[in-house]
Amino acid sequence: MVDMPTPITPRLPRGMRDILPQKMLQRQYVIGEIEKIFQRFGFEPLQTPVLELRETLMGKYGEDAEKLIYDAKHREGKEELALRYDLTVPLTRVVAMYPDLVKPFKRYQIAPVWRAERPQKGRYREFYQCDADIVGSASMLADAEIITMIYTVLRALGFQNFVTKINNRKILTGIGQYAGVSDELLGGLYRAIDKLEKIGVDGVREEMQRNAIPTPVVDKIIDLISLPSNAISELYERLGDIPIAREGLDELTQLATFLADAGVPHTHYQFDFAMVRGLAYYTGPIYETVVTEPKIGSLTGGGRYDNLVGLFSKHSLPTTGTSFGIERIIDVMDELAMYPASIGKTVTQVLVTVFNAELVGVSLRVTNLLRAAGINTELALAGEGLGKQLKYAAAKAIPFTVIIGPDENAAQQATLRDMTTGEQSVVAQTELANVLYAKLHKNTQTT
Amino acid sequence: MVDMPTPITPRLPRGMRDILPQKMLQRQYVIGEIEKIFQRFGFEPLQTPVLELRETLMGKYGEDAEKLIYDAKHREGKEELALRYDLTVPLTRVVAMYPDLVKPFKRYQIAPVWRAERPQKGRYREFYQCDADIVGSASMLADAEIITMIYTVLRALGFQNFVTKINNRKILTGIGQYAGVSDELLGGLYRAIDKLEKIGVDGVREEMQRNAIPTPVVDKIIDLISLPSNAISELYERLGDIPIAREGLDELTQLATFLADAGVPHTHYQFDFAMVRGLAYYTGPIYETVVTEPKIGSLTGGGRYDNLVGLFSKHSLPTTGTSFGIERIIDVMDELAMYPASIGKTVTQVLVTVFNAELVGVSLRVTNLLRAAGINTELALAGEGLGKQLKYAAAKAIPFTVIIGPDENAAQQATLRDMTTGEQSVVAQTELANVLYAKLHKNTQTT
Repeated sequence: MVDMPTPITPRLPRGMRDILPQKMLQRQYVIGEIEKIFQRFGFEPLQTPVLELRETLMGKYGEDAEKLIYDAKHREGKEELALRYDLTVPLTRVVAMYPDLVKPFKRYQIAPVWRAERPQKGRYREFYQCDADIVGSASMLADAEIITMIYTVLRALGFQNFVTKINNRKILTGIGQYAGVSDELLGGLYRAIDKLEKIGVDGVREEMQRNAIPTPVVDKIIDLISLPSNAISELYERLGDIPIAREGLDELTQLATFLADAGVPHTHYQFDFAMVRGLAYYTGPIYETVVTEPKIGSLTGGGRYDNLVGLFSKHSLPTTGTSFGIERIIDVMDELAMYPASIGKTVTQVLVTVFNAELVGVSLRVTNLLRAAGINTELALAGEGLGKQLKYAAAKAIPFTVIIGPDENAAQQATLRDMTTGEQSVVAQTELANVLYAKLHKNTQTT
Repeated sequence: MVDMPTPITPRLPRGMRDILPQKMLQRQYVIGEIEKIFQRFGFEPLQTPVLELRETLMGKYGEDAEKLIYDAKHREGKEELALRYDLTVPLTRVVAMYPDLVKPFKRYQIAPVWRAERPQKGRYREFYQCDADIVGSASMLADAEIITMIYTVLRALGFQNFVTKINNRKILTGIGQYAGVSDELLGGLYRAIDKLEKIGVDGVREEMQRNAIPTPVVDKIIDLISLPSNAISELYERLGDIPIAREGLDELTQLATFLADAGVPHTHYQFDFAMVRGLAYYTGPIYETVVTEPKIGSLTGGGRYDNLVGLFSKHSLPTTGTSFGIERIIDVMDELAMYPASIGKTVTQVLVTVFNAELVGVSLRVTNLLRAAGINTELALAGEGLGKQLKYAAAKAIPFTVIIGPDENAAQQATLRDMTTGEQSVVAQTELANVLYAKLHKNTQTT
């Protein structure tokens, strides 16, 4: 027997959470749908450890990550370890470590990462990332595949009004050259442009001026980044003499052709020449998906980062990919009640009650029959009266219950009760699985 | 552009591993099958954070865990955190934190835990645990459900020769009382008994003597624990006057009746009065499943632990459950090649090749059609000749390829190539999904 010491207060660390069963079922549905489509597109699963060497993780991020990263150690361990901060660095480490992986290497990973950010509503320090990347193809077909997959995933989850905004880092670099911005000022320029949607043209203008960018240059840039999505010919005219910009424009043109061939409707992607995306490592097309109605911010972000594998290897590999903001997607789906009716509050489809101690055996046998037929079945365990057992079923929102009293059992029958309507029917025990299957199937279709 | 600094050597921390796609597909299959049956039995998914407060984790284990646990912190964090060491303590914390959870609370969790054990072949410091527990039922029905589920899971995975050994801590306590072993010596007694299978009767005898247990007592105990599985009436005769032992025997008798009613064949469970199981917190029935042929040790372990929730709450809750040794199960299934033929080396079922730059569009459209029909389809991205694309398909073991040259396309046809047999057939593009679906289905059934 265990001693009973003073209880420890059950608490969670700051910024952490439990996901209880009802929410977990919704979460599993979302992850399952996404995973199905990742595989439909030929992406393969990969698992990397939560703990990585600190030096592996710190290559990419610098000071920002220093503040947020969780270090880990065990008492006798000599290695400096940390919890992974994203799934991109582990991917590039894997690609460098196993040079025999067949290329292009298409992998997905849906897994938690850790960042000690200030906790706030809907923001946690452990959260899932959901990434799909293609390593080893420089073709715009790879970028087209990623954007097509984003479209397919979001449609499968029930999103209607969304658009993937596309830009190209090469065009941004070209704009910098066109406007004569020195390399040292490029970072500030990008940060200013990135805020266009938030702070408007005037805000960006001020921001650029604060960043020491001369006024005539500011005017030229504002002019360019304000061009509408369909103004690519305008950009060719103005930037066509700058090789890097022309390259970027050619890539976007090709990408658009591929997307049309792949059947992505024009309503679901557009060029946005003011989109920058925060991370420094992008080198080509970048993309970000926003929901337009209701306005809920971005659901995916990604792009091409051809130099990142070079962190771990002399031979870099062209890479492109996207991350689905799966936590935000789940939050939005919660808020808009976007789950299909088949995702209930419990996995259990039927509770087999236990009438009394003499009839436990028959309840066990019926439970066994239902499970063998593929029906998720609970056996009542509380050992209490029928009333309490039905109350349990109601509390858990189990849709059906089975009752087998002495009379029913003598006739090899069972009473099947629909917990939503209260309807009851008497069914032969051997027919129970069939009858229940039909009812469950009908329920899913009509509700 | 990103600067290219000296590459960081891509390395893994000690005792950690990556799981590359091919192994991941097998792993996902095993986890998926287990999860399906957990849900079939009405167990609900739960997610808890990887990081817990140190005080939460340390309640149960003491010094052993101190040596093995990974601590975690972030630069400005004030909490003492650690990576979870198992899934049982997080479960009991959850149960204590959310008193409104409907009871019995049946949950499963399949997730990684961390222990800095000495790395060795097949043993890692991050490994998955796979637990199913029932909180809030003292009924032997709950224990019977767990054992029935173990049987169902192992059969579903293809295991044939296995047996769940069952004992009861109450009987062990009773044996201690019967033999007159003082409470201080009970721990040593149990540890000695636990080694019976490994070191034999003589070994156990020596071990007990080393533990200061008097020789006549040793004889009495050896006699009892050597009783065969079907000797429960013999135990009733000798221990029936000891209340705790009688209680334990009654529980096992009831459990056996329930297992028979639940349809678990007698060949798959047996009493083993010498089985102890290491952990101190068990209070009632304990069970452990071993594969008898080939001899590969235990695949599951578990039992009743009615006092553990009491770590976090004044009100304890009767709890029983089991852990599947999922890493060992996967190792054994690897070794014995137990995966169904449908689990291939890649998720991809077909590669659509790209004949030349002019025909990219048609390959994209055909890819789109196949994916819409639910077929896992890759589009060739390498931008190289057909030969290289087919080589890629072969290297990845993709079973089918589609080739659309100018002639085929003019006739709205495509060539479908079976990569295993080399057979080719020309099919209308609109019929491709149907033809391929039939071939894939046939392949799965016959190989």
